[in-house]
Amino acid sequence: MPRSAHSAAPYIAVIGASEPTPEQEQAAEEVGRGLGGAGAVVINGGGAGVMAAASRGARDAGATVVGILPGTDRHAANEFVTLALATGLGDLRNGLIVRAADAVVAVGGAYGTLSEIGLALAAGVGVVGYDTWAIDGVELADTPAAAVTRALELAQDAVY
Amino acid sequence: MPRSAHSAAPYIAVIGASEPTPEQEQAAEEVGRGLGGAGAVVINGGGAGVMAAASRGARDAGATVVGILPGTDRHAANEFVTLALATGLGDLRNGLIVRAADAVVAVGGAYGTLSEIGLALAAGVGVVGYDTWAIDGVELADTPAAAVTRALELAQDAVY
Amino acid sequence: MPRSAHSAAPYIAVIGASEPTPEQEQAAEEVGRGLGGAGAVVINGGGAGVMAAASRGARDAGATVVGILPGTDRHAANEFVTLALATGLGDLRNGLIVRAADAVVAVGGAYGTLSEIGLALAAGVGVVGYDTWAIDGVELADTPAAAVTRALELAQDAVY
Amino acid sequence: MPRSAHSAAPYIAVIGASEPTPEQEQAAEEVGRGLGGAGAVVINGGGAGVMAAASRGARDAGATVVGILPGTDRHAANEFVTLALATGLGDLRNGLIVRAADAVVAVGGAYGTLSEIGLALAAGVGVVGYDTWAIDGVELADTPAAAVTRALELAQDAVY
Repeated sequence: MPRSAHSAAPYIAVIGASEPTPEQEQAAEEVGRGLGGAGAVVINGGGAGVMAAASRGARDAGATVVGILPGTDRHAANEFVTLALATGLGDLRNGLIVRAADAVVAVGGAYGTLSEIGLALAAGVGVVGYDTWAIDGVELADTPAAAVTRALELAQDAVY
Repeated sequence: MPRSAHSAAPYIAVIGASEPTPEQEQAAEEVGRGLGGAGAVVINGGGAGVMAAASRGARDAGATVVGILPGTDRHAANEFVTLALATGLGDLRNGLIVRAADAVVAVGGAYGTLSEIGLALAAGVGVVGYDTWAIDGVELADTPAAAVTRALELAQDAVY
Repeated sequence: MPRSAHSAAPYIAVIGASEPTPEQEQAAEEVGRGLGGAGAVVINGGGAGVMAAASRGARDAGATVVGILPGTDRHAANEFVTLALATGLGDLRNGLIVRAADAVVAVGGAYGTLSEIGLALAAGVGVVGYDTWAIDGVELADTPAAAVTRALELAQDAVY
Repeated sequence: MPRSAHSAAPYIAVIGASEPTPEQEQAAEEVGRGLGGAGAVVINGGGAGVMAAASRGARDAGATVVGILPGTDRHAANEFVTLALATGLGDLRNGLIVRAADAVVAVGGAYGTLSEIGLALAAGVGVVGYDTWAIDGVELADTPAAAVTRALELAQDAVY
């Protein structure tokens, strides 16, 4: 039995670039939908590209979708986020996305995503990668569905 | 029409001490219940005392209750929070609570609450106080119900 | 004997408004000069008003003057700072100023200063006030010289 | 002519693991000494390993050595730091090290260093690497001396 209302669900971050390839964008949406359908809270940076695609997929699946934003205006979040948190921290909010999550899925991504992968692995948070940075410690998945499955497993190990 | 899923509701922080008087604790619960019943997202520090009481009231009213925690373990949140975000920032997370909110209600409180009042007023976020620090700029309310009403007004001014 | 190069000196923050009265500005300069003359590292927000005046006084006395800035450009610091650290955290850098200090002197000040007073007292860092917020826990000094003396005492208690 | 006291020198961060190889440790010390000898302010995380070695080299060369610490006790800094700033931010202080610098030298390093490389490159801060992560955008140097030379060039481009 979960210890409280907020403990019942895994929290999984989906990270990636704001300017993904079409294939990465579709993968991010599938990852979001898969995670949301499995009951996960989906966390992301609240921006465009992979963040918006993952948010859209997760929201379509009925999930709580949390956007942790770099700026101070929560209305700048992508429209699929169901809860937008303005931080005003700029890129330093990357660390908050990772800290809030039980596991991370990286889809594509540039340097910001690289920093999130580093912060996650440094903190002992598992990272599943799809078409992203080849970094020792990132578990590569061949399909969005495989990424979802593995992220949920990593989150379960983290939570219980 | 709201611009997006996350824009429809006001976001209101309830701040206060972890060791309130019984009267303050009851007031915090009433404030949480009133805000939640009005459709607000209720944000707090996720801890004990005023934070837990406001969370309980808001959750009973069906609200989304966000706890922004000082530590790195989200399971340390009070059991009434529906979304717990671990930050690892210690007291510096006080600023995130305030930044995420459209308006703030302060009930009782010690120095941490004082810092949140200062950060809110510095950022132009309206603060309603109930039995709390007497600071120029804080709008004092005589009852929890009056605090709820005024906070919702301030939030509406901030959002639209 | 100090444990290391950085431990020999007390670290004291001087906080206050960017738009002080002429009298507060002069007091801030005297506080900075007194602290610097006593060998303290003087920390402030790196901006104008009280921050610049305290920096000027401290630098004239040969002190290391650290400006912890809200923005991302260190060249925005006032010209009297000898070390400027850009944070990009906005007002949340207020907490870093306080955390870095062994004691705090507040001269005048608006809501940002109030938040720093709250954060300092919450963290157990002593605060000496001169013509500033009347908050329980702030030790009021009648003159800049008295503020310097008391801050150095509080810092010594904190360090050793 | 520098615009102010703090603008005359380049600020260069030296990042790397707390448990380096002996060769990396010696390289870090040489990098610190070279940067310090060239008049740079040397910034690091204030800890052990590469951080301590770079600090030692820089201090021996007479430089200002800034340690930006994860914890709340500045006395935890390595003994070669000349200015220790406690942040209490944990790993999120990684971003502050990078933000404060005009250029970065990475020597060896694990996931924390990877996160700093990502944050630096995302922010447009140049990174020179010596025996570190092979990441597109990091300029590899064959010797510590070459790393110093290139970092000073990158910093000059950033400052002026």
